[in-house]
Amino acid sequence: MIPSRQIVLEAGDRVAPFVHRTPVLTSRLLNELSGAEVFFKCENLQKMGAFKMRGAINAVQQLSETQKKAGVVTHSSGNFGQALALAAKNLGVKAYIVMPSSAPAVKIMAVKAYGGLVTISEPTLEAREKSAAAIVEEEGAVFLHPSNDLNVIVGQGTAALELLQDHHDLEFIMTPVGGGGLIAGTALAAHYLGTNCVVVGAEPREVDDAYRALKSGEIEYNITTDTVADGLKTNLGDINFPIIKELVSDIIRVEEDGIVAAMKLIWERMKLVIEPSSAVPFAALLKEREKYRNKKIGIILSGGNVELSNLPF
Amino acid sequence: MIPSRQIVLEAGDRVAPFVHRTPVLTSRLLNELSGAEVFFKCENLQKMGAFKMRGAINAVQQLSETQKKAGVVTHSSGNFGQALALAAKNLGVKAYIVMPSSAPAVKIMAVKAYGGLVTISEPTLEAREKSAAAIVEEEGAVFLHPSNDLNVIVGQGTAALELLQDHHDLEFIMTPVGGGGLIAGTALAAHYLGTNCVVVGAEPREVDDAYRALKSGEIEYNITTDTVADGLKTNLGDINFPIIKELVSDIIRVEEDGIVAAMKLIWERMKLVIEPSSAVPFAALLKEREKYRNKKIGIILSGGNVELSNLPF
Repeated sequence: MIPSRQIVLEAGDRVAPFVHRTPVLTSRLLNELSGAEVFFKCENLQKMGAFKMRGAINAVQQLSETQKKAGVVTHSSGNFGQALALAAKNLGVKAYIVMPSSAPAVKIMAVKAYGGLVTISEPTLEAREKSAAAIVEEEGAVFLHPSNDLNVIVGQGTAALELLQDHHDLEFIMTPVGGGGLIAGTALAAHYLGTNCVVVGAEPREVDDAYRALKSGEIEYNITTDTVADGLKTNLGDINFPIIKELVSDIIRVEEDGIVAAMKLIWERMKLVIEPSSAVPFAALLKEREKYRNKKIGIILSGGNVELSNLPF
Repeated sequence: MIPSRQIVLEAGDRVAPFVHRTPVLTSRLLNELSGAEVFFKCENLQKMGAFKMRGAINAVQQLSETQKKAGVVTHSSGNFGQALALAAKNLGVKAYIVMPSSAPAVKIMAVKAYGGLVTISEPTLEAREKSAAAIVEEEGAVFLHPSNDLNVIVGQGTAALELLQDHHDLEFIMTPVGGGGLIAGTALAAHYLGTNCVVVGAEPREVDDAYRALKSGEIEYNITTDTVADGLKTNLGDINFPIIKELVSDIIRVEEDGIVAAMKLIWERMKLVIEPSSAVPFAALLKEREKYRNKKIGIILSGGNVELSNLPF
């Protein structure tokens, strides 16, 4: 059920030519505030502004030549649509991106700028899935899920793989939890490349499906999704959840004001533009600082795609 | 008159243990927009958020033990006050920082947080100089000028020194021009470590004293200083100007709207928080893009100390 060490290492080699090896930054002041020694892996500085480029480029490369000719399709209101469009462009593959009519114009333009073929759907999950299925049917394109696809998951894990290559003695790595692709991939990388490195998830209390799923042992769903961390509203999937259940023991829930405060600290003190979802792990560390005192902690800053005209502070 | 290669190289070794080796980042999109290949040296990610840490730590280390015991003093409304306080703290030296009563409370607090001993003066250059002179008199402290001091100048040049170590084939390096310390130090580094690497200054048209000084051969002054780039309002000095005159051939003047647009592009596309002054060289490149088409250009992103509640966009 758990992919092999070989698969994790091969993904690192496969994505390397297509992604930035993002810097790992530290801040004396944020160390003082948290009481821990924190190493921030800056995936906000990744191509297209988020770690999602890693999973997309890993997955598209593993398609057969026939599949590549037919193209790929996904539905996404956010970063994965841009990531798949850019990854596919790099490899000369067509990318059909289904986006909800509620998506900001700037995100639709970004997908188009990367050569993505955009289809606008009604803003429900059902409508998006139906549009994507129609493209699979009519064009023969291969559907790639943003987070519940093994090649995508292993690709997302390459951020942690690089982080552990740079800092092999991390005791913890913290990531946000949305659809589950990033944390599952991170847990695989830590499992094979860390030295007793424990992966901890961080989630807004408002969308705590993953926290509840770890308790119940079943995939759980969110009734309301009223969080500033708009990248974390989705629930886990049947491919990433078994990996998370096996390898992740703890998910910390944080309040909205904690997310906004952590986001502002990272902007002000680290001079990094990050999106609200990226601030959730640092908010979790600040909340649980007693537990992690003096520990060496990696944090994946997952992305920086935020509208400057619509900041929460 | 021009400091030796030896002095420039020694400064690199002297500052290295005390500063971050900041990353050099690139953006496909900003390359497309500018028509050049741009390497951004991220001094906004430097300790205390600006390159000024480099000059301060280089200068304080070269004081005698007697001088170190007496402490250092400067007057600054901005980054150099913080830099000197932090540099002095690292070396166990007292730092007296004279700040105008008009300085934002957050900057005064930052200097105090670094252990600086703050004196508030009237907000005129004359009053600041008088306060600093009194501290020299009474405490025996050594005055360090933010930009017109040879050890400070050579220290500021270590950002370009690192940039050229990473990318030895840069054809141009562009920096903002304020008091002249950064561009003079950069020109020295490029002179000794570049391969025909030309240093170009960039200045708001509103405070174009350096542009006029290069034309007239004399230090010039600004009558009005109505620019968003608040770090660039000062004029050149008698120690840095001879270096600039000898080694810098071109200064580009840019308009206010060009500065704000370049700043926004770097925030949005590179996910970096930079202050307006830092955007001036990229604004200059965009303005003169025909001249620099397909060139390899280093740009020093000088700092990221900006109030998030008071952005120009």
